[in-house]
Amino acid sequence: MSDAAQNTHANPIPELQERAARLDAEDGLGKLRERFTLPDGVVYLDGNSLGALPAGVPGAVADVVHRQWGELLIRSWDESGWWTAPQRIGDRIAPLIGAAPGQVTVGDSTSVNLFKALVGAARLAAPGRTRMLVDATTFPTDGYIAASAARMTGLELVPVDPSDALGALGDDTAVVLLNHVDYRTGRLHDLPGLTAAAHAAGALIVWDLCHSAGALPVGLDAHSVDLAVGCTYKYLNGGPGSPAYIYVAERHQGAFDSPLPGWNGHAEPFAMTPDYVPAEGPARMRVGTPDILSMLALESALDAWEGVDVEAVRAKSLALTDFFLECVAAYVPQGRVEPVTPAEHDRRGSQVSLRAEGAREVMAELISRGVVGDFRAPDVLRFGFTPLYVGFADVERAARTLGHIFG
Amino acid sequence: MSDAAQNTHANPIPELQERAARLDAEDGLGKLRERFTLPDGVVYLDGNSLGALPAGVPGAVADVVHRQWGELLIRSWDESGWWTAPQRIGDRIAPLIGAAPGQVTVGDSTSVNLFKALVGAARLAAPGRTRMLVDATTFPTDGYIAASAARMTGLELVPVDPSDALGALGDDTAVVLLNHVDYRTGRLHDLPGLTAAAHAAGALIVWDLCHSAGALPVGLDAHSVDLAVGCTYKYLNGGPGSPAYIYVAERHQGAFDSPLPGWNGHAEPFAMTPDYVPAEGPARMRVGTPDILSMLALESALDAWEGVDVEAVRAKSLALTDFFLECVAAYVPQGRVEPVTPAEHDRRGSQVSLRAEGAREVMAELISRGVVGDFRAPDVLRFGFTPLYVGFADVERAARTLGHIFG
Repeated sequence: MSDAAQNTHANPIPELQERAARLDAEDGLGKLRERFTLPDGVVYLDGNSLGALPAGVPGAVADVVHRQWGELLIRSWDESGWWTAPQRIGDRIAPLIGAAPGQVTVGDSTSVNLFKALVGAARLAAPGRTRMLVDATTFPTDGYIAASAARMTGLELVPVDPSDALGALGDDTAVVLLNHVDYRTGRLHDLPGLTAAAHAAGALIVWDLCHSAGALPVGLDAHSVDLAVGCTYKYLNGGPGSPAYIYVAERHQGAFDSPLPGWNGHAEPFAMTPDYVPAEGPARMRVGTPDILSMLALESALDAWEGVDVEAVRAKSLALTDFFLECVAAYVPQGRVEPVTPAEHDRRGSQVSLRAEGAREVMAELISRGVVGDFRAPDVLRFGFTPLYVGFADVERAARTLGHIFG
Repeated sequence: MSDAAQNTHANPIPELQERAARLDAEDGLGKLRERFTLPDGVVYLDGNSLGALPAGVPGAVADVVHRQWGELLIRSWDESGWWTAPQRIGDRIAPLIGAAPGQVTVGDSTSVNLFKALVGAARLAAPGRTRMLVDATTFPTDGYIAASAARMTGLELVPVDPSDALGALGDDTAVVLLNHVDYRTGRLHDLPGLTAAAHAAGALIVWDLCHSAGALPVGLDAHSVDLAVGCTYKYLNGGPGSPAYIYVAERHQGAFDSPLPGWNGHAEPFAMTPDYVPAEGPARMRVGTPDILSMLALESALDAWEGVDVEAVRAKSLALTDFFLECVAAYVPQGRVEPVTPAEHDRRGSQVSLRAEGAREVMAELISRGVVGDFRAPDVLRFGFTPLYVGFADVERAARTLGHIFG
């Protein structure tokens, strides 16, 4: 760029900085940032990959290690509530995704929960239905696991563009798997409409909530979703690789037939009988012994949600992404980046993805300047906005730094 | 009991106490106890359920939480070695179970790994073989998961007593699943002989090492075992619900076809391509994002094995269980307990199980007196001996306390 252009785009624009300051001052969620420990001097826009550290987690984990494990040892399975953690923490996540208690179980990875959900859904589907529809642009693990689930239940896997899912539905559709928010583009899909359409066709629907839970209202019960899965290390800030969850609507639980019937899902696990009798309720979705350290770190992390209204989170999320798009337009020379995240609010998640030439190198440069987003192949700069700890001044700085790099 | 009997059995027997002191003084592994943090005044004989806290773990976990997660955030996937942890830690466990590097992957629960191993083995088996043999007295999750794996691969599940497994083997046997050490009785099964017999019948064999790994030599490679799984929270002291592992012999890895092909097991996970191409080598057994807190606690816990010879551990384990049986015979009135663990060394794991009337109440009483074992339905007192931190004076005290209760 010429020096003139660099000046145009690299220097702070007072109007945007003043507006950022005003928006931060008016932000009812602004003080939630104190509930997190963030590195100094960094604008962290990668909470859609790994959420930041909630302030109470280090103390909670130290207690689990020193006292619960080191001193109480095996007694902690009862006395420290280890055994009941998967359902207890499931009930903490439930209100964030619009689920009544008793439908969410925490444990295992998202991939493993997807396998349970898809095989379980295939077994719940009406006889004679032969096809499993899956989002063709999905995060890859969903497609890989769906292929395995389809293979092992005798269904045909049919990749569909979520925009075309309506047209692909038919009386041969057994199960549909879709992502609520696309991991790459940040596009929000119409969960109420697509769920209703799947049901109208007589199919069951499984939603992957990895990129929506904790960033926007999901409304699983309100929209009669059948099954859902999600991770807890993005907008729920559970820590690296923290356990995922599975939701099975109460009406399906009695007939839910897990492909992973581990002893933790047994009606009487300590009877240790040779025959599997599935537990009633959400414990049926459990498999093996839960990862207690990661599980209880997540439980503590969820304290950051105390008193927080998901509708307010959504409003701030949209304000942040709107402001980011505006700042990018002001700071970045025209033509250097192209937003791939939809402009319409009802089609936008809590991230903004920008297509850019040399995106990998641009992101490396951004990170070296203290603005952390991430890169997704082949050419996407991805910025996640976690309303609990990202503010408007962060947004302005991120866009301005991007402008510097392109300046 | 009469007062006389109580005196006979409740009072310390000097000869046993002196022998315990001498054995502890001569114990080459005795100083390993310093590598653990054990609660004061407690004899902990439940390491076969939850291993004690290794001294380095609290500091390691605090570093993972504060610095790796809190400060480095997403960068830790590379910079803190999070991404490669499943194989790196697998290679730390490998020598403890007699495996060369590159065959063990850590992650998921034992139940989930069993599902991978059994479905993978069924797919590796010669065509036309129709039966899966499984230990009828197995820890229940193995039986439940085997039933699901058999159902989903079209095999017939055949429960067999491990002692009769040889007779049940035939040219219709596809896969055999056995436990190296029985969780209830502590009986050690003949891994070399049963593996050779399975191979002679043309079948593949999967071993569950939960109750043997870390307590005695396993020799997976030496005995040409096909696949194995195990947990890490018993004799490996990885912490509550720490991730399990799966071993797939190198000769089978190229054809290993996982029923859980998550994105972590892809040849190029970050290419995020729609088609699944399995990684070469042990990464193929990975599924979803690993539980980093639990995983790295385990890695630190394995430091307790630095310089430790598993053969020496086995020798001490047998000396401990021999001495316990001798002390029980001396302290506990005749007829009140009956050992169900075999007396022969080559059929004994690292635990002693005693059948007793009112076993549940007896164990509660023992625990209240500072001797921690556990109860297994319907009538078994279970005592696990972890040679890394249990000594001979502990053994004498445990038997003497049991004598008090029956006195």
